[in-house]
Amino acid sequence: MGIEYAGICHSDIHTVNGDWGPQPFPVVPGHEIVGTVAEVGPEVTKHKVGDRVGVGCMVNACRECANCLRGDEQYCLNGMIGTYAATDRDGTTTQGGYSTAVVVDANFVLSIPEGLDPAAAAPLLCAGITTYTPLKHWEAGPGTRVAVVGLGGLGHMAVKIAHALGAEVTVLSQSLKKQEDGLRLGADHYYATSDPDTFEALASSFDLIINTVSASIDVNAYLGLLAVDGTLVNVGAPPEPLPVNAMSLIGARRSFAGSMIGGIAMTQEMLEFCAEHGIASDVEVIAADQVNEAYERVLASDVRYRFVIDTSTL
Amino acid sequence: MGIEYAGICHSDIHTVNGDWGPQPFPVVPGHEIVGTVAEVGPEVTKHKVGDRVGVGCMVNACRECANCLRGDEQYCLNGMIGTYAATDRDGTTTQGGYSTAVVVDANFVLSIPEGLDPAAAAPLLCAGITTYTPLKHWEAGPGTRVAVVGLGGLGHMAVKIAHALGAEVTVLSQSLKKQEDGLRLGADHYYATSDPDTFEALASSFDLIINTVSASIDVNAYLGLLAVDGTLVNVGAPPEPLPVNAMSLIGARRSFAGSMIGGIAMTQEMLEFCAEHGIASDVEVIAADQVNEAYERVLASDVRYRFVIDTSTL
Repeated sequence: MGIEYAGICHSDIHTVNGDWGPQPFPVVPGHEIVGTVAEVGPEVTKHKVGDRVGVGCMVNACRECANCLRGDEQYCLNGMIGTYAATDRDGTTTQGGYSTAVVVDANFVLSIPEGLDPAAAAPLLCAGITTYTPLKHWEAGPGTRVAVVGLGGLGHMAVKIAHALGAEVTVLSQSLKKQEDGLRLGADHYYATSDPDTFEALASSFDLIINTVSASIDVNAYLGLLAVDGTLVNVGAPPEPLPVNAMSLIGARRSFAGSMIGGIAMTQEMLEFCAEHGIASDVEVIAADQVNEAYERVLASDVRYRFVIDTSTL
Repeated sequence: MGIEYAGICHSDIHTVNGDWGPQPFPVVPGHEIVGTVAEVGPEVTKHKVGDRVGVGCMVNACRECANCLRGDEQYCLNGMIGTYAATDRDGTTTQGGYSTAVVVDANFVLSIPEGLDPAAAAPLLCAGITTYTPLKHWEAGPGTRVAVVGLGGLGHMAVKIAHALGAEVTVLSQSLKKQEDGLRLGADHYYATSDPDTFEALASSFDLIINTVSASIDVNAYLGLLAVDGTLVNVGAPPEPLPVNAMSLIGARRSFAGSMIGGIAMTQEMLEFCAEHGIASDVEVIAADQVNEAYERVLASDVRYRFVIDTSTL
């Protein structure tokens, strides 16, 4: 496919910096990719030349294990193949979307619905699906009370999607700095977690908390915000283990869970859902030569809410 | 009610020893109580004199909060009242079942179905409901793979109930010492957790793990045994926080949860279920003057699987 836009995900920066161990450099990052089909193999029926398509965090999986067969390719028991810096099943190193073109197996290519702006759709392929999957899995909807921890690239999508699903949405952010934005994005309530009163005022009041913050949090404090049968879902992985008091769970049949992106079918469903509800990512489109500066601004949390590279500037 | 039998729960020993902080001594322990109705108040229609009844871990709750109204009195937002060593709503200290009689609000008294042996039924009121609730809540049944960690008072009930629900049951015990017993109780498989091969052989293979061990376990090792969407449920609370690697959860959308006994309606349902399936606790009935010795044997895990005091020996 010919690439038009590639979102910048925090993972790209971790990979480039080697935070996650040695990488098979040279690596082209980028796993929020939107473009159009340039060429198809003879057996491809799902996509045709000129279609607007997207590629997310994975480009292959075994397709035979129990998890692949149930549509959870991201949990492939033989190892899902990441979009970049991974060893594909043919032994080559995968390369991502900060580029003008990429070759991907048609089964791992998504259709971008007509109504979606292509630049704003790019971050849906990672930030969108990462938050959509747990919201759907734990049944956010009318009558459920959902909190979103952190209002960044993932958090702003969680707010939009949870709101579109009909849930009552609360943002739990370090400060009230982005409060106006949060309410505009669809939140019903906004609280600062730096204020200890927040944890008292909101005790036992959520059915679902989506934690988008990858830094370590006081997990027991957040578990205390869950009502009976509530679930706290981490979509990021802090480097250090999180000490969980079993009593925080037992005292109200609470769960502490984790979720990673979503399967291909779920990703397609998410794209249709976003198109139908007129939502996508809030993006700042940049030229290729602004990537280094963008990385610094991501690290400083100074982006509302996702940088997307216009690859025609490459 | 006149008491016939009272089970000995590990919590009794913790309370007596002051492990859980200062207690309002003198305290009569015991929250696995079976006997017959001796007298009823004028407004009681649920039970009549002579009925065989039981009392479990709680004897009161506010009955007005959201949790009480949905039948989860054990999670009463105004504080569930424990059967002993708790301050009741009238200011008195509650006293438990190592006695010949106890006065309990009729709403917190269970009916013991005819088919159940009264001594063997007593431990159902704590060990039974503690394991029945999470098995039902997380939908153990035909086609689900359930593991039970620890084969003691709680564990042996978890095995019996999970088997009766139709699940495929695996016991994960320190050693293979009780293997024959485990299979007799209804387990399909039995593994020693002291053997590191166990964690490799059983990786990603359970839908639900009920952890009945109150000592600290390597929670990440057990989370690794869960398939996608699997849940590890603690029914006991280790004194120390458990360090959870978020990646253990995120890597397969797993959950780490906790559960505490069950509501009154659920407890009645559990008693009917046990009667219908012909299951109850394996008990060793003792006289009142053997309680101290029994406590020592409980601490040494030398009981198969629950001591029950015949209160006629008092």
